[in-house]
Amino acid sequence: MHLSKRLAAELFGTFWLVLGGCGSAVLAASFGGPDHGLGIGFAGVALAFGLTVLTMAYAIGHISGCHLNPAVSVGLVVAGRFPARDLIPYIAAQVIGATLGAFTLYLIALGNPEFDLATNSFGTNGYGERSPGQYSLIAAFLCEAVMTGFFLFVILGATDQRAPAGFAPIAIGLCLTLIHLISIPVTNTSVNPARSTGPALVSGVEALSQLWLFWVAPIIGAIVASLVYPAVACRRQAS
Amino acid sequence: MHLSKRLAAELFGTFWLVLGGCGSAVLAASFGGPDHGLGIGFAGVALAFGLTVLTMAYAIGHISGCHLNPAVSVGLVVAGRFPARDLIPYIAAQVIGATLGAFTLYLIALGNPEFDLATNSFGTNGYGERSPGQYSLIAAFLCEAVMTGFFLFVILGATDQRAPAGFAPIAIGLCLTLIHLISIPVTNTSVNPARSTGPALVSGVEALSQLWLFWVAPIIGAIVASLVYPAVACRRQAS
Amino acid sequence: MHLSKRLAAELFGTFWLVLGGCGSAVLAASFGGPDHGLGIGFAGVALAFGLTVLTMAYAIGHISGCHLNPAVSVGLVVAGRFPARDLIPYIAAQVIGATLGAFTLYLIALGNPEFDLATNSFGTNGYGERSPGQYSLIAAFLCEAVMTGFFLFVILGATDQRAPAGFAPIAIGLCLTLIHLISIPVTNTSVNPARSTGPALVSGVEALSQLWLFWVAPIIGAIVASLVYPAVACRRQAS
Amino acid sequence: MHLSKRLAAELFGTFWLVLGGCGSAVLAASFGGPDHGLGIGFAGVALAFGLTVLTMAYAIGHISGCHLNPAVSVGLVVAGRFPARDLIPYIAAQVIGATLGAFTLYLIALGNPEFDLATNSFGTNGYGERSPGQYSLIAAFLCEAVMTGFFLFVILGATDQRAPAGFAPIAIGLCLTLIHLISIPVTNTSVNPARSTGPALVSGVEALSQLWLFWVAPIIGAIVASLVYPAVACRRQAS
Repeated sequence: MHLSKRLAAELFGTFWLVLGGCGSAVLAASFGGPDHGLGIGFAGVALAFGLTVLTMAYAIGHISGCHLNPAVSVGLVVAGRFPARDLIPYIAAQVIGATLGAFTLYLIALGNPEFDLATNSFGTNGYGERSPGQYSLIAAFLCEAVMTGFFLFVILGATDQRAPAGFAPIAIGLCLTLIHLISIPVTNTSVNPARSTGPALVSGVEALSQLWLFWVAPIIGAIVASLVYPAVACRRQAS
Repeated sequence: MHLSKRLAAELFGTFWLVLGGCGSAVLAASFGGPDHGLGIGFAGVALAFGLTVLTMAYAIGHISGCHLNPAVSVGLVVAGRFPARDLIPYIAAQVIGATLGAFTLYLIALGNPEFDLATNSFGTNGYGERSPGQYSLIAAFLCEAVMTGFFLFVILGATDQRAPAGFAPIAIGLCLTLIHLISIPVTNTSVNPARSTGPALVSGVEALSQLWLFWVAPIIGAIVASLVYPAVACRRQAS
Repeated sequence: MHLSKRLAAELFGTFWLVLGGCGSAVLAASFGGPDHGLGIGFAGVALAFGLTVLTMAYAIGHISGCHLNPAVSVGLVVAGRFPARDLIPYIAAQVIGATLGAFTLYLIALGNPEFDLATNSFGTNGYGERSPGQYSLIAAFLCEAVMTGFFLFVILGATDQRAPAGFAPIAIGLCLTLIHLISIPVTNTSVNPARSTGPALVSGVEALSQLWLFWVAPIIGAIVASLVYPAVACRRQAS
Repeated sequence: MHLSKRLAAELFGTFWLVLGGCGSAVLAASFGGPDHGLGIGFAGVALAFGLTVLTMAYAIGHISGCHLNPAVSVGLVVAGRFPARDLIPYIAAQVIGATLGAFTLYLIALGNPEFDLATNSFGTNGYGERSPGQYSLIAAFLCEAVMTGFFLFVILGATDQRAPAGFAPIAIGLCLTLIHLISIPVTNTSVNPARSTGPALVSGVEALSQLWLFWVAPIIGAIVASLVYPAVACRRQAS
């Protein structure tokens, strides 16, 4: 498959991840106010994020591998599953797709007479005052690194040739749902630098000032897991 | 398979989509009032719509392909996956099934002493004053077109012969759940002209006056995606 | 497989269906009161019922076929998929399992100091005053018959040899979840005479006085669908 | 596969089970207070626990079998599916992983300025005053034994060589979700002695004083089911 087509697939896929995941948070999470029973809440947002990956993994997995996430691409390079020469183009496509997805979400949200970007967190990630539960920088960093690490561990395991064929999109998509079920209160859940960047570019300077953490922590977690999984799964050692 | 049997399958399937999806919204979404914790909320309705497609795709996919949606049938014609000569009969069967499903739902709802069609939105789609969140016509149009476009993109990808066999109903059904998790507040979510038409015929003139958008926007989105997916997935081009 | 082992499997499976489905309703649906955000609500109960069938279908499908439901067994006889001579033993095993499951649930519920069988509906099905939403007898009958009909339609389709192998438990289990998402407010959802009988025997005379409907309506729906599906799927006819 | 690698997989997997399952309960279940609509509630916690097992079963099933649970390992020994000589090492790895997972969760939770271990149940299991619904010791014991029994029954059935290949992680993971949908109000749901031990070690003496039940009851239930399933599924007997 030519690189240009794989990049187009990554761009569309990451567009969908941000439009779908952040869209569910911005448009539907607290519909009618926080005490209103019809909104989908954090559980609905968690399901939405996971389903963006599950659906795209079946739709474009055979085209680009469906990374949709710079931390995933970095981890797969470290694990020897993805060529390093394609890393920068993939990350660029992911960030562009995430940004276009965030702008499209903004255009839809503008159609709501009560929407105000100045008071809406717009699905951005944050720590301290910008964390949904006011979690500290250290907790946010630890949480993002650990969650991304297990995400990569599951990705590497579920796509191992010894794992049942065809089920990886279910395992990986629902792993992202699980990660959100745990950690939305901590950082609004990133585990994906591109997903953090798109909404931050729309939201403005406050979100951008914390964006570094959502590049550094997920990538560290991904690198560690991509060194650990092959050691657990494949390396010969005495018992 | 004879066309008459395929049309019967489409009719039953679209009946189920409307009875199940709109039924969950009308009967169960806000059970006991909007602040009552037992109702299934928008997340439950989103799950219900997706499961109507997931269940029918396993039940009749081998009979009719399980489109259940005029925008899907149009997209599949554009992508060269469905013969144009069957398009009008399929759409007719889908609209008839959706309408019968909506009338059956009406008969059940009538058994509730508090049900009043004059004050119940009956699962219809709308924009402006008829949007759950009062979203504008432009936002509604954009949302329906984009959501339907990604729906077709996922359908075309998940049924690509290179995708894992047997999983397409999961990917497609849960994609419809995802779309509802995002966009119920905007338009009550259509992405399916037949699904919009059935309840509107029962509900009356107000819903019918906005029905045009839920034919035009989804079909435009479907056509665009059905041109884009093959270009990303299959066309030869220099990298 | 010997009949005694298949009957044991049906008994355990239907025990699980009632303990799990009705158990989630009795123990967890409105935890802390109806306005309390921690209870699982109707959506959680819907998921629980579906997962009892999904899990058992993978666990005992290869032993007994995992009917767990007299209406399913009747429908499969009508469709020519199950021998009539095994019908009565299967139904007996299902009713015994459902009753033992309901009694086990009762023993657990007794451990809650606030539980009172006299004021708890105990997961029983009902219409009129005993319907969660006070739906009439006619609406309850129509709803149960139509829901069971589509349940059989999906069962027959998803286990058709042309459907993807291995996925039927997902389609059938999640179909039961879907049915509950729609119809808990109407009848508390039966579509299964054994599931209605077990809790009614524990609950007492009021529930038993309405039990007839939850045998008659589901079985009528199952018979109709089991005549319709083969006509749509298999019979030769001119187009 | 060398034992050391299998033990590492069990340790990571049980770490994930406790961090994910208990993490969703501690961090996200009642976000913003019990009446706040954004928290994921018991249903979200149920989904999280199940998804920890589903994701790890696809990731490490081919390495260690993905028990993650001493009761499961005991049951598999009883059923003749797992060598008794590996039982103690597996249980040790599971308990260590669970404990490390609980401490990691504690480190993250400490980042929330309102978190106080003295008043937070920290996902521990309990009966009587420590049961979410004040269920008695007898109800808690019965519930844990029966739930673990059916969990083993589903595990043994779904991994039977006659069951569809590849689907066992879905059946087993969603069975754990189902068990939580039923029984969180009773004991906060264990069915897994390692899962109970990790948080209890962090939480302190009150939780530890009740820990015995969450070793004894699940293991009894697992042993009974592991004797029953083979009898239902495999043993020759006259009908």
